[in-house]
Amino acid sequence: MKLSLAQINPVIGDFEGNASTIIRIIEEAKKKGVDIVVFPEMAVTGYPPKDLLDKPQFVAKNLETLERIALSTDKNIAAIVGFVSMNEATIGKGLFNSAAFLHEGRLVYAQHKILLPTYDVFDEARYFEPGSSQSLVEYKGIKIGMTICEDIWSTAEFKGRRLYKIDPVDVLVKQGAELIINISASPYVIGKRKVRRTLLSNISKEKGVPIAYVNMVGGNDELIFDGCSIFANKDGEIVREGTPFKECVLTVDLNEQKVEKEREFLGEVEEVYEALILGLRDYVRKCGFKTAIIGISGGIDSAVVAALAAEALGSNNVIGVSMPTRYTSQRSIEYATALAKNLGITLHVVSIDEIYQSYLDTLANYFKGMPADVTEENIQARIRGNILMAFSNKFGAIVLSTGNKSELAVGYCTLYGDLAGGLAVISDLPKTFVYKLASYINRWKEVIPESIIKREPTAELRENQRDTDTLPPYDVLDAILRLYIEERASPDAIVEAGFAREVVASVINMVDKAEYKRRQAPPGLKVTSKAFGWDRRYPIACKC
Amino acid sequence: MKLSLAQINPVIGDFEGNASTIIRIIEEAKKKGVDIVVFPEMAVTGYPPKDLLDKPQFVAKNLETLERIALSTDKNIAAIVGFVSMNEATIGKGLFNSAAFLHEGRLVYAQHKILLPTYDVFDEARYFEPGSSQSLVEYKGIKIGMTICEDIWSTAEFKGRRLYKIDPVDVLVKQGAELIINISASPYVIGKRKVRRTLLSNISKEKGVPIAYVNMVGGNDELIFDGCSIFANKDGEIVREGTPFKECVLTVDLNEQKVEKEREFLGEVEEVYEALILGLRDYVRKCGFKTAIIGISGGIDSAVVAALAAEALGSNNVIGVSMPTRYTSQRSIEYATALAKNLGITLHVVSIDEIYQSYLDTLANYFKGMPADVTEENIQARIRGNILMAFSNKFGAIVLSTGNKSELAVGYCTLYGDLAGGLAVISDLPKTFVYKLASYINRWKEVIPESIIKREPTAELRENQRDTDTLPPYDVLDAILRLYIEERASPDAIVEAGFAREVVASVINMVDKAEYKRRQAPPGLKVTSKAFGWDRRYPIACKC
Repeated sequence: MKLSLAQINPVIGDFEGNASTIIRIIEEAKKKGVDIVVFPEMAVTGYPPKDLLDKPQFVAKNLETLERIALSTDKNIAAIVGFVSMNEATIGKGLFNSAAFLHEGRLVYAQHKILLPTYDVFDEARYFEPGSSQSLVEYKGIKIGMTICEDIWSTAEFKGRRLYKIDPVDVLVKQGAELIINISASPYVIGKRKVRRTLLSNISKEKGVPIAYVNMVGGNDELIFDGCSIFANKDGEIVREGTPFKECVLTVDLNEQKVEKEREFLGEVEEVYEALILGLRDYVRKCGFKTAIIGISGGIDSAVVAALAAEALGSNNVIGVSMPTRYTSQRSIEYATALAKNLGITLHVVSIDEIYQSYLDTLANYFKGMPADVTEENIQARIRGNILMAFSNKFGAIVLSTGNKSELAVGYCTLYGDLAGGLAVISDLPKTFVYKLASYINRWKEVIPESIIKREPTAELRENQRDTDTLPPYDVLDAILRLYIEERASPDAIVEAGFAREVVASVINMVDKAEYKRRQAPPGLKVTSKAFGWDRRYPIACKC
Repeated sequence: MKLSLAQINPVIGDFEGNASTIIRIIEEAKKKGVDIVVFPEMAVTGYPPKDLLDKPQFVAKNLETLERIALSTDKNIAAIVGFVSMNEATIGKGLFNSAAFLHEGRLVYAQHKILLPTYDVFDEARYFEPGSSQSLVEYKGIKIGMTICEDIWSTAEFKGRRLYKIDPVDVLVKQGAELIINISASPYVIGKRKVRRTLLSNISKEKGVPIAYVNMVGGNDELIFDGCSIFANKDGEIVREGTPFKECVLTVDLNEQKVEKEREFLGEVEEVYEALILGLRDYVRKCGFKTAIIGISGGIDSAVVAALAAEALGSNNVIGVSMPTRYTSQRSIEYATALAKNLGITLHVVSIDEIYQSYLDTLANYFKGMPADVTEENIQARIRGNILMAFSNKFGAIVLSTGNKSELAVGYCTLYGDLAGGLAVISDLPKTFVYKLASYINRWKEVIPESIIKREPTAELRENQRDTDTLPPYDVLDAILRLYIEERASPDAIVEAGFAREVVASVINMVDKAEYKRRQAPPGLKVTSKAFGWDRRYPIACKC
């Protein structure tokens, strides 16, 4: 029996486009004598469709599309496709997250997802009723058990807890499953590939059953799906693995199961680089844009974002805008110019000092006798936001914002200023990681001028400003932030980890107070276990 | 037996403040010979604490606080208090949403919430394990069954569906409950009071058991809790009902149960007015602000927001800023001035035309030969956003944004421009409702100048601009939006309801395309069944 694992990149709600990809792959598989093709979770709708699921016409189109896809199967070839099905019962949520077994032109069986992740970025209990039964499908003499994403993670522990009482894989194996299929839409975070390999290897070995794991690939808003589909044999060996961050179709013969040479692991920085390229490219493309606008300050964050955008979209499709004021050093403009030259992108140098002066003149009357403070700094940042958005409006291009996670965490950024944009490319990268990414981008040649990497971080919003005027050194800051945000450590626990109590208190206070800024920040690509997106939901009006 | 229903307004995470309110009310109840005082769901933590629940120190403080509260009970008085408890089992979510029965200084019994709402604004399955058992507490000879919010809504139908298989009230009644307590944090939407009264009346009548329903009051970010606690006797009569939108303590004698004269129902508009006043006041107060800044255009939206703010915060604490350009008519400034005079608020008239000209001059080079379009309009709106935020920064006041729901729905608003602010006061009010609210505000005297109410809506961002250049008339627009957003009707169904197909298609297209603006909008006070907040979660990069 020949099995194809189709690691595809659907667009949410693009039923026409998703169906044509799925049908094309089934047609190609027929020619190769494949017996069954497996597609990811919710391949028909794209994932996560969120409240689009509340629209009856969305669910109806998904069902019609599944019927069309079914017609491309025949006597010799079957397909397993993720879709949304209706709950016919009158009690419970109205939908299931399901895997369709399609054969001979029709839906043979729909297995509903048993375990519904409702944590972090996931809201599945918001939409779906959990499946209450599981059955095997016998196909060409093999008993196949279907599972959907979370269904294979039942035994996983999070901080010493298991979330679920049921193990759907165990149920299927006890029913006599000879092959477990898992269709997934499992988002990337750093190191996830290893975790998945270990999990799948352990399950297949422990249960003595091969597993075919098909994961989605592509960017959808803040989420990046990395693919890395896996076929593991009954001895727990990874026979084949899909390319990370790319569409691909893996075909395996159940009788052969010859173990392929293990794909090299990407280093952490390279992995994040690839993830961001995919997430950036897909967001821009799926939103219908071609060109991106980036404010280039001469600092490292915007340099890294510009380099990512040039790679993801092509240099021709990136417009940099440098917007100096009286506080901008000459070298910042020189660095920006050198960067643009290295990247081959357009750079406009638009002095905003006259605009800034006109704000000062206009407001002088009202602010009389009051000393300059963060107000004047924010005015400059917001002029830049306005200019970038004007370029965006005039040329139909998307603004990419360039703030990093450290800034966003402590609120060292201006709402409607540097926070403005359609996508925050590196808002889940701590500043210290941005440096690593810059070095990686420069691995073969100097793309980002070394002078940019070496200079001391400054917002240049007042004379001689340096980030360390306001913040602890970034290595300290990032270490505290990781403990507080990702590990959810208490202040005491962070102090015990070796940081000064007053520094810890000050950082935590800044993080808690900046929630209102993050609430209005653009979506940011998630690469860590806890980004500032749908995965982190905080109240604003609170004492905490 | 004397029962007090304590309808309080906790601040999320303010354990000290919440405890002192609770303890004060228990002490007062002791003096009145009350036997038991009941507080709302999660009265200890405030609701909804969202991911603050992920912080171990947050949960720990909540437990310590509960212990402190317990100490104020004694032999003669008990208290029922909503809090968060730990799930000692190693499988499942780590927390329960619980009701504590406190007596003689200690926790006698904790009833965990059985039904966890996970839809609309609610994410309870994200945090909590559902309770799996229910028991009665016998106190002074009466068998009391405790339920938490959703637990009494099991039989309610949403679009012909029931969500839950279990009915926790039924379980308790079968165990012999003689009194059902329900502690709630049930947010306001228009008409909710009637729905609740009917529900409680039906349950108590059907089960033949009295019910004491204690709801939270107060604003927490976008949610407004309206109180309206209820005591219904076993015949389904509403014996007592708490004040809407205000803290109060209702005391009832179980033996008397004399039916109080029914509190008059507020009209829909008055109800919304009261809700917004509370939501606005609490957001500003709970965020630690005293003063608000509002851009006053001379149009109806900002006039209504200014009137609400003057009422909620006091005229002294509202600063209006009128920011005319070359496109602003003289009468807009006159209207703004008249409004400010009527309200007794400060008004600064800050011409932004020079700033606008400096943007045009600066950008002329880059936009050469390109016709003026929405770019130039947005620049003006964003200058206003920048000016308002400058006032905010300089004077430590919060900016209230003034956009209505119709605009936000179709994207007839500027990101970082008129969308800028800490709170969107009327972003859940359709434009046609804003007019109703203006009339209500003028019920006794002309607060909002009639000329503002009568003028044709215009953004004044170009010569002779009118809203109807871009949008259908507001009565048509709002009717289509209600069907599409609140009823989730399909385009075909909306056409069938009597609207032109091309108008419907154009409106829906505008709504779908504006998602990226709403994602970065400030939190807005929710008053309808579907606002643009946590209750409506849409992807951005999609075809829909």
